Amino acid sequence: MSRIAVVHGPNLNLLGVREPAIYGRESLADIHGALTALAQTLGHTIVPFQSNHEGALIDHVQACRGQDDALILNAGGYTHTSVALRDAVAFVNEEIPVIEVHLSIPEAREPFRHQSLLCGVVRGRIEGFGALSYLLALRAASALIAQRGDDRNE
Amino acid sequence: MSRIAVVHGPNLNLLGVREPAIYGRESLADIHGALTALAQTLGHTIVPFQSNHEGALIDHVQACRGQDDALILNAGGYTHTSVALRDAVAFVNEEIPVIEVHLSIPEAREPFRHQSLLCGVVRGRIEGFGALSYLLALRAASALIAQRGDDRNE
Amino acid sequence: MSRIAVVHGPNLNLLGVREPAIYGRESLADIHGALTALAQTLGHTIVPFQSNHEGALIDHVQACRGQDDALILNAGGYTHTSVALRDAVAFVNEEIPVIEVHLSIPEAREPFRHQSLLCGVVRGRIEGFGALSYLLALRAASALIAQRGDDRNE
Amino acid sequence: MSRIAVVHGPNLNLLGVREPAIYGRESLADIHGALTALAQTLGHTIVPFQSNHEGALIDHVQACRGQDDALILNAGGYTHTSVALRDAVAFVNEEIPVIEVHLSIPEAREPFRHQSLLCGVVRGRIEGFGALSYLLALRAASALIAQRGDDRNE
Amino acid sequence: MSRIAVVHGPNLNLLGVREPAIYGRESLADIHGALTALAQTLGHTIVPFQSNHEGALIDHVQACRGQDDALILNAGGYTHTSVALRDAVAFVNEEIPVIEVHLSIPEAREPFRHQSLLCGVVRGRIEGFGALSYLLALRAASALIAQRGDDRNE
Amino acid sequence: MSRIAVVHGPNLNLLGVREPAIYGRESLADIHGALTALAQTLGHTIVPFQSNHEGALIDHVQACRGQDDALILNAGGYTHTSVALRDAVAFVNEEIPVIEVHLSIPEAREPFRHQSLLCGVVRGRIEGFGALSYLLALRAASALIAQRGDDRNE
Amino acid sequence: MSRIAVVHGPNLNLLGVREPAIYGRESLADIHGALTALAQTLGHTIVPFQSNHEGALIDHVQACRGQDDALILNAGGYTHTSVALRDAVAFVNEEIPVIEVHLSIPEAREPFRHQSLLCGVVRGRIEGFGALSYLLALRAASALIAQRGDDRNE
Amino acid sequence: MSRIAVVHGPNLNLLGVREPAIYGRESLADIHGALTALAQTLGHTIVPFQSNHEGALIDHVQACRGQDDALILNAGGYTHTSVALRDAVAFVNEEIPVIEVHLSIPEAREPFRHQSLLCGVVRGRIEGFGALSYLLALRAASALIAQRGDDRNE
Amino acid sequence: MSRIAVVHGPNLNLLGVREPAIYGRESLADIHGALTALAQTLGHTIVPFQSNHEGALIDHVQACRGQDDALILNAGGYTHTSVALRDAVAFVNEEIPVIEVHLSIPEAREPFRHQSLLCGVVRGRIEGFGALSYLLALRAASALIAQRGDDRNE
Amino acid sequence: MSRIAVVHGPNLNLLGVREPAIYGRESLADIHGALTALAQTLGHTIVPFQSNHEGALIDHVQACRGQDDALILNAGGYTHTSVALRDAVAFVNEEIPVIEVHLSIPEAREPFRHQSLLCGVVRGRIEGFGALSYLLALRAASALIAQRGDDRNE
Amino acid sequence: MSRIAVVHGPNLNLLGVREPAIYGRESLADIHGALTALAQTLGHTIVPFQSNHEGALIDHVQACRGQDDALILNAGGYTHTSVALRDAVAFVNEEIPVIEVHLSIPEAREPFRHQSLLCGVVRGRIEGFGALSYLLALRAASALIAQRGDDRNE
Amino acid sequence: MSRIAVVHGPNLNLLGVREPAIYGRESLADIHGALTALAQTLGHTIVPFQSNHEGALIDHVQACRGQDDALILNAGGYTHTSVALRDAVAFVNEEIPVIEVHLSIPEAREPFRHQSLLCGVVRGRIEGFGALSYLLALRAASALIAQRGDDRNE
Repeated sequence: MSRIAVVHGPNLNLLGVREPAIYGRESLADIHGALTALAQTLGHTIVPFQSNHEGALIDHVQACRGQDDALILNAGGYTHTSVALRDAVAFVNEEIPVIEVHLSIPEAREPFRHQSLLCGVVRGRIEGFGALSYLLALRAASALIAQRGDDRNE
Repeated sequence: MSRIAVVHGPNLNLLGVREPAIYGRESLADIHGALTALAQTLGHTIVPFQSNHEGALIDHVQACRGQDDALILNAGGYTHTSVALRDAVAFVNEEIPVIEVHLSIPEAREPFRHQSLLCGVVRGRIEGFGALSYLLALRAASALIAQRGDDRNE
Repeated sequence: MSRIAVVHGPNLNLLGVREPAIYGRESLADIHGALTALAQTLGHTIVPFQSNHEGALIDHVQACRGQDDALILNAGGYTHTSVALRDAVAFVNEEIPVIEVHLSIPEAREPFRHQSLLCGVVRGRIEGFGALSYLLALRAASALIAQRGDDRNE
Repeated sequence: MSRIAVVHGPNLNLLGVREPAIYGRESLADIHGALTALAQTLGHTIVPFQSNHEGALIDHVQACRGQDDALILNAGGYTHTSVALRDAVAFVNEEIPVIEVHLSIPEAREPFRHQSLLCGVVRGRIEGFGALSYLLALRAASALIAQRGDDRNE
Repeated sequence: MSRIAVVHGPNLNLLGVREPAIYGRESLADIHGALTALAQTLGHTIVPFQSNHEGALIDHVQACRGQDDALILNAGGYTHTSVALRDAVAFVNEEIPVIEVHLSIPEAREPFRHQSLLCGVVRGRIEGFGALSYLLALRAASALIAQRGDDRNE
Repeated sequence: MSRIAVVHGPNLNLLGVREPAIYGRESLADIHGALTALAQTLGHTIVPFQSNHEGALIDHVQACRGQDDALILNAGGYTHTSVALRDAVAFVNEEIPVIEVHLSIPEAREPFRHQSLLCGVVRGRIEGFGALSYLLALRAASALIAQRGDDRNE
Repeated sequence: MSRIAVVHGPNLNLLGVREPAIYGRESLADIHGALTALAQTLGHTIVPFQSNHEGALIDHVQACRGQDDALILNAGGYTHTSVALRDAVAFVNEEIPVIEVHLSIPEAREPFRHQSLLCGVVRGRIEGFGALSYLLALRAASALIAQRGDDRNE
Repeated sequence: MSRIAVVHGPNLNLLGVREPAIYGRESLADIHGALTALAQTLGHTIVPFQSNHEGALIDHVQACRGQDDALILNAGGYTHTSVALRDAVAFVNEEIPVIEVHLSIPEAREPFRHQSLLCGVVRGRIEGFGALSYLLALRAASALIAQRGDDRNE
Repeated sequence: MSRIAVVHGPNLNLLGVREPAIYGRESLADIHGALTALAQTLGHTIVPFQSNHEGALIDHVQACRGQDDALILNAGGYTHTSVALRDAVAFVNEEIPVIEVHLSIPEAREPFRHQSLLCGVVRGRIEGFGALSYLLALRAASALIAQRGDDRNE
Repeated sequence: MSRIAVVHGPNLNLLGVREPAIYGRESLADIHGALTALAQTLGHTIVPFQSNHEGALIDHVQACRGQDDALILNAGGYTHTSVALRDAVAFVNEEIPVIEVHLSIPEAREPFRHQSLLCGVVRGRIEGFGALSYLLALRAASALIAQRGDDRNE
Repeated sequence: MSRIAVVHGPNLNLLGVREPAIYGRESLADIHGALTALAQTLGHTIVPFQSNHEGALIDHVQACRGQDDALILNAGGYTHTSVALRDAVAFVNEEIPVIEVHLSIPEAREPFRHQSLLCGVVRGRIEGFGALSYLLALRAASALIAQRGDDRNE
Repeated sequence: MSRIAVVHGPNLNLLGVREPAIYGRESLADIHGALTALAQTLGHTIVPFQSNHEGALIDHVQACRGQDDALILNAGGYTHTSVALRDAVAFVNEEIPVIEVHLSIPEAREPFRHQSLLCGVVRGRIEGFGALSYLLALRAASALIAQRGDDRNE
C-alpha cells in the first residue's frame, strides 16, 4: 500500500468559494473525499496538506522524500514566483515522482501566471480539468509507482 | 458508445525511434493498442490519425466537430507555431472537449517550445508522462463526456 | 475583362459558423455571391480558392502571377507566421497588385495576431469590415487595374 | 442625406509636396474634390477638417458624435503616439462608425509607426492605397450607414 | 485662504457621458460642485481648468507655480505619453505639492496605460475611486499646505 | 460602527527607523494613533496587523472577508512579487473595498518596484504621502462604506 | 544675408529658472541676445520662436521651408515622443539644414529621453553644452549655408 | 557510390525569376545540372526534391535517414518558423550529416529571418554564395562521407 | 570578541544531500564546525540560523542590527525573488557589514537565478567556492570589523 | 596657449577612402590641417592621435589628464562597445572637458550603433556634420577652456 | 596566381588544445598545411595571420584591400562584439570577397554568440565543419576570384 | 611554493586616483604589497600583471595555463564585453582555478556592468570589498591549491 502526498498551496483552502467560474464549486474537502475513494480502489493512502505559507510548504515538501511514494502538488501562486519551492521540489523529484496540478491552465490566463518555475523539476503536469485534475494526477501517480515497482523487479 | 478522436502531429510517426531518451521507446502502434484496450473498458471507440501536414491536421480537426465526442490532440511542433491550427481547435473546443497532450513538458525544454498557442482553446492539458499521457487524456475525455451527459440529463 | 484571384487561408471555409460574433454570419459562398455580383458590374471575373494547407496556398499564389490581374488575399492565421507565404506574395506583388484582407482587425486582438508578415509585400490592406472587407478590396483591385491601364496607355 | 466627417492629422496639409514617392502627388484639395464627387453619387455630404494640433483634433473628433453619421480619420503621426486621441475616438466609435485611413501601410515602415493606438477603437482600417484609401473609406462608410439604417428598420 | 488648482486633461470634459462603467456618471461640473463644497469647509478656493490641448495644459501648469498653493492634476491620456507635460509638472512640484489623480487605476488597464511619466515628479498619487479621488486629493492638498505652514512657523 | 482592517506587510514594523528620508520618522504606533483618532471621528474601529510573513498576511487577509467592512493594505515588498497574496486580495475585494496604500510612490523608485501585482484587484490606490497616505485611505474607506450603505438602502 | 530660424519646444520659456543645475542660469532672452550678436558677426538674421504646443511647433517648422536658410531646433520633450513633429522636420530637412540642439545630453538621463525621433531627419546634432550648444549650432548653420552656396556656384 | 539528397523548400521553384538581385539568375534546373556534374566527378549521385509544402518536406526529410548518405537542405522560409521541420532534421542528423544551405545570408536581412531553428540540429551551414553555396555543400558532404568511411575502417 | 550572524535561507538544511555535484558533500553542521574553528582563531563568535520561511528570515535579519557585528547571508532562492528580504537587509547593512554568500555562482546557472535583489544592499559578495565561500566570508567579516574599529579609534 | 588632444578611434585612418557617402571625402590629414588652422586663430595647439587598438586609445586617453586642457574624441566603433574606454574617459572628464564627436549620427544608423557608452561621461557631443563636426568641437573646447579660466579668475 | 589572406582571431592559436570536443584536434599549423596543399592545387598562395589583439586584426584586415584577392576570416570572439572590426571588414568587402568562417555554429551555442556583427559585410559564411570549414572557404574564394576574372573579361 | 598570477584589466593602473569613492584610495602598488606579504605567510609567490589592452590580457591569461597554479583576475570593463577574454579564461580554468575579483559589485551599478561574461568559466567570484577582495581571493587560491594537492595525494 503506497502513500501519496497531496500538497495544496496558497488560497486553495478557499476552493468552492473563490471565483467558482474559474476554480469550480467543489471544496478542498470534496476533492479529498473523491481522492480518498479513488485511492482505496487503487490501493493507496492519501496524505493531504494545505498551507498559505511558502516556508511551511517547503518544509512539508522536503519531508516527502523518504516518507511518501509520490507527491501531487498544486503550488497555486507560488508556482510562478518561488525559486525556493522549486529547489525543494527538485530534491524530492530525484527520488519519487512529483506531479504538478492546476485547476485551470495558468498559461492561458494573466501574463504573471505564464511561467512555471516548477515545470523543469516535475515528472508530469495536469492542468485545466478542475477537481478532475487531482483524480487524473492520482491515476498518474499510481501508474508511475507501479511502473517503478516493475522496473525494480526486473 | 462515444467516439474519441486521437490526433498526432508532425514526427509522431517516428515514436519509439526518435530520441527515445525524451519520447520513450513505445511506437505509435503501441500507444494505439493501449488506448484501444482502455477505451474498450470505458466503453469508447478510438479514432486515431497522424500527419506531418499542418493543413491535413486542420482539415481533420475541423471535421471532429459534429463527428466525435472528444478530441485528444498532440500537435507536436505545431503547438508552438500554428495560429491556423489554434483557430481550428478553438472551433472544435466550443462543442466538444479538446485535450492537449505532450509526451515531455515542452515548457521545460528549448525556448522555442515554451509557448503553446493551443493552451487558450483547450479544455485541459496533460504533459510529461510519455505514453501514459495519452491514457490519462483518455480517462479525462471519458470523465468529461460522462459529466456532460449528466449535465444534459439534469 | 480582368481576372481577379480571391484566395482564402485556413479556417475560412468555416465562415458563418465559426465565432460569428467576430467573423459575421455570412458563409464563404455568400461572400463569393456578393463578389461575383459586384465583379459583373465592374466588368471583372472572380476566381476564388480556399485551402487550409500553407503549401497549397503558396502553390496557388505563385501561379497568380502571369494568370491574374490582381490578387485579394485573406491569409488567416498564416498572416502572422508564414515567411514562406510572404515570399510567394512578394513574388506576385512585383507584377500585379496584392490586397491583404481581414474580416476583423487582427492588431486589435491577441498579441500573436499583431504582426503581419505580409504587410511589407502587399499594395494595400483592408481590415475589420467583415464580408464588406472583400467588396472594398474588389473595388480597390478594380481601381488599381484601371489606373495601370491608364499608365500603360500614356 | 448623411453627413460624413473626414479628419486629417498632422502634416497632411503638405500632401502632394511631402515625400511624393510615399504619399503620392495629389493634394488634400484634390482628395476632397474626388471625395465630394463620389459622395454626391452616393448621396452624402463630406465635412473635411485638417489640423496639426492634437488638441484641436480631439476637440473636433469629440464633436462628431451627435453631429455626423460616420468619421473617416487619418490621424497621421498621432496614430502611433496619442492615447488622448484614442480615447476621443473610442467615444465616437460607440455611436457612429469610425474608419482609420492611411495612405501608406505604417506597419511596413519604421518601427515607431508599427503600433496603432487607434486600431482597437475603430470599425475598420484601410491602408496603402494612397488617395484611393479615402475613396474606399467613403464607400465603407456609406455601406455601414446603409446597413445601420436597415438594422433600424427591421 | 489657500488657492488650489484642479487641472483636467483630454476627454475629461466628457465625464459622465464617456464609458460610465469605468469613469462613473458624474460630470465635471458635479465634481467641481463637490470640490467647492469641501474646499469651503477646509477654507480653500478651487480653480478648475480643463483642456484637450497638451500645450494649453503645459502653459496652465507652468503658471500654477507662483500663483497657487497646490495642484491637483488628472492628465488623462497625456499621463502616459507626455515628457513635455512631465517637465512642466516637475517645475511646479519643486515649489508646491502636485497630486496626481485618476478615476480608474490605469496600471490595471491596457498596457499603454501602465507607465506614468508623471509619477517621479509628483508628491503623491490617488487612483481608482472615481469622483472620490478628487475629494481625497483635496484633503491631501489641504493637509500638505497645513504641514508646510507648520514647517515654516517652526 | 464599521470595522476597518489595516494590514502592513514586511519591514513596516521598522517605520520611523528605516530610511526615514523615504519613509518618514513616524513609527507604526504613531500611525495607528492617528488612525484611531480619525476613525473615532468618523465612527469606525481600526483593527491593525503587521507581519513579515507572506503566509501570515495571506491568512489574515482571507479572514477579513466576512469580518471587516474594508481593508487598508500596505503590502510592502510583497506588492511586487506575490501572486499568492494577490489571489487572497482578489477574494476579499469581491466583497468589501480593498485600498492599496504606499508611503512612497514605488513606480518612481527601483525597477523591481514598478509593477504592482495588486493593482488589478483593489478598489483604489493611494501613494506617496507618507503617514498621510493611511489617513486618506481611512477617509476613502469611510466614504466607500457609506456609499455602499446608501446603495443598499435604495 | 541669410535667415536662420531658432525654434524652442516646451518648457524652454522657463530657461534660467527651471532646474538650473541641468539647464544653466541663462534665460531664453540671454541666449537670443548672444545668438543675435554672433549672427551679426557672421552676417545672418536670427528668427526665434518658442511654444509649448506641439501643433504650433509643427505649423511653424513646416513654414520654415521656403522662408529660412537653416533651422536650429531644440524640441525639448517632443524630441522623444512626437512622430508628428518628426514628419514636419523631415519635410524641412529635405530643403534646408536642420540642426538638433539640446542643453544637456538626453541619452545620458532618464530612459524615456534616450530615443530621439528626430535624429534620422536632421543634418547634425549638438548636445550638452548648455547655452553654448545654440552658438555652436549657429556656427554649424552658417558653415552649411556657405558650403551650399559654394556647391551652387560650382 | 554515395547518394546525397538535395532538398529545397518553399519558393525555390522560382529561382532565377524571383528577386534575382538577391537570389541570382540561375534556375533550380541550372543548379541541379551543376551539382550533377560535380557529383559525378566526386563519385556521388544527387537526389533532388523541391516542395512548397511543409508537411511534404517533413515526410521527405524523415525518409532520408536509412536511404541517403547525406542531406543538403535549403529550407527557405521554413528555416525560421518550423519547429516541426527542425524535429525531422534532428532525427536525420543523428545518422547522416545534414548541411544547411542558403543562397543569401538570412541573418543579414529582415529581422524575421535572423533566427534559424535548424542551426542546432545540422552538421554545418553554408550561406551567401548563391548557387555556389550548393556546390560547396556537396564538397562538404563528400568530405564528411569520406571521413566517416575512414572512421569506420579504423 | 565580536558576534557574527550566519544566516542560511531555504533548502540549505539539505546541504550534503541535495545535488552534491553543485553544492558539495558537506552538511550545514560541517560548515558550522569549520566556521566555529576559524572564528575561534580570529576571536569571534558565530551565531548560525537556518529557515525555509521568508518571514522568519526577515524577522531574524532585522534583529541582527543592534545585536551582531556582521551578517553572513546565503539567502538561497530568496536572493532572486524577495524584495521584502532585500529591504530588511538594506536596513541592517546601514549599520553593520552584510556579506552575500553562495556555494555556486548563480549568475552562471538558470536565467531565473541571474538577478540578485540583494547585491545593491550588501557590502560584498563571495560565490562559487562551496563551503569555502563561508570561510572566506568570515575572514571578510573579521577584516571589516577590525577596519571599523580602526576607523573609530582614529 | 592651451593644448587640445584630438583622438580618433578605429578605421578613422581610412577617412576619405571608406564609404565617402557617409563619412565624406576629406582625409584625416585634411581634417588635421583645418583644425590646426582654426586652432592657431583661437590660440591653441592641436595634438592628434589615431589608433585602431582599444588599449592604445585607453593608454592615450588616460594620459590626457594632467597634460591637455581638453579632449576631442571620436571613438568610432568603440563608442558602442567599450566599457573600458568609457572608464578611461570618465577619469579624464573629471578634470578637463571631453567632447564626443561623430561624422555621422550613429543613433540614426544600424541598431548596434544606437547606444553610446560614452555619453554619460563627456561634457558635450557633436554629430553628423562630417569634418565640420571636429571644427565645431574645437570651438566648443575653446569656449569651455575660456569659461573655466573665467571661473578661476572670479 | 592569386593571394588569399587567412586571418584568425583570438584564441585560435590554441586550436587542437582548447575544447577539442567543439573545435577539433587539429592545430592551426595543421590547418595551414592543408590549406597550402589545396591552394597549390588551385593555383593560389595562402597568407595566414593570427592575433589575439582586436587592433592588430583591424590593422591587418584593412591592409588586405589592395594587397590580397580574397580574405578568409575567423574572427573568433570578436565576431560577436566588435563594431570596429566590422567596419574594417566592410571596407575590404567592397573590393574583394570576404568569407566568414567558424569551426562550430556559434548561433547554436551560448546566447552571447548568436549575433554576428560581421554577417552584413561579408560575401558568404561557412560554419560548423571544423577544419574543413577553412578548406571549403578556400574553394569558395577560388571560385569567386575566377568568377570575377570572368566578369572582367566580358 | 606555488605561483599565483594576479591579472588586472583596463584602468586598474589608475587605482587610488580614479573615483576613490567607489574604488578606494589604495594604489595597485599598495595592493601588490599587501598581496606579497600575505603570500609569503601562505608560502606562495605573486606574479602581477596589468594592461589596458584586451589582446595583451588574452596573451597573458593563455600563458598562465602550464605556468601558474592559480589565476586571480580583475578584468575591469572587459568583464562585461569580451567574449574573446572569456574564451581564454575558460581555457585556463580547465586546468587551474581562476578567481574573478572586483573592487565594487558591478551588478549593483550601471546596467552595462550587470552581465559578467566570465562568471560561467571561473571557479569563484569575490566582489565589493575594495582592496580586501584581492586578499580574500589569495586565500581562496591558496585553499584551492591545497585542496587539489590533497586530492592528488589520495
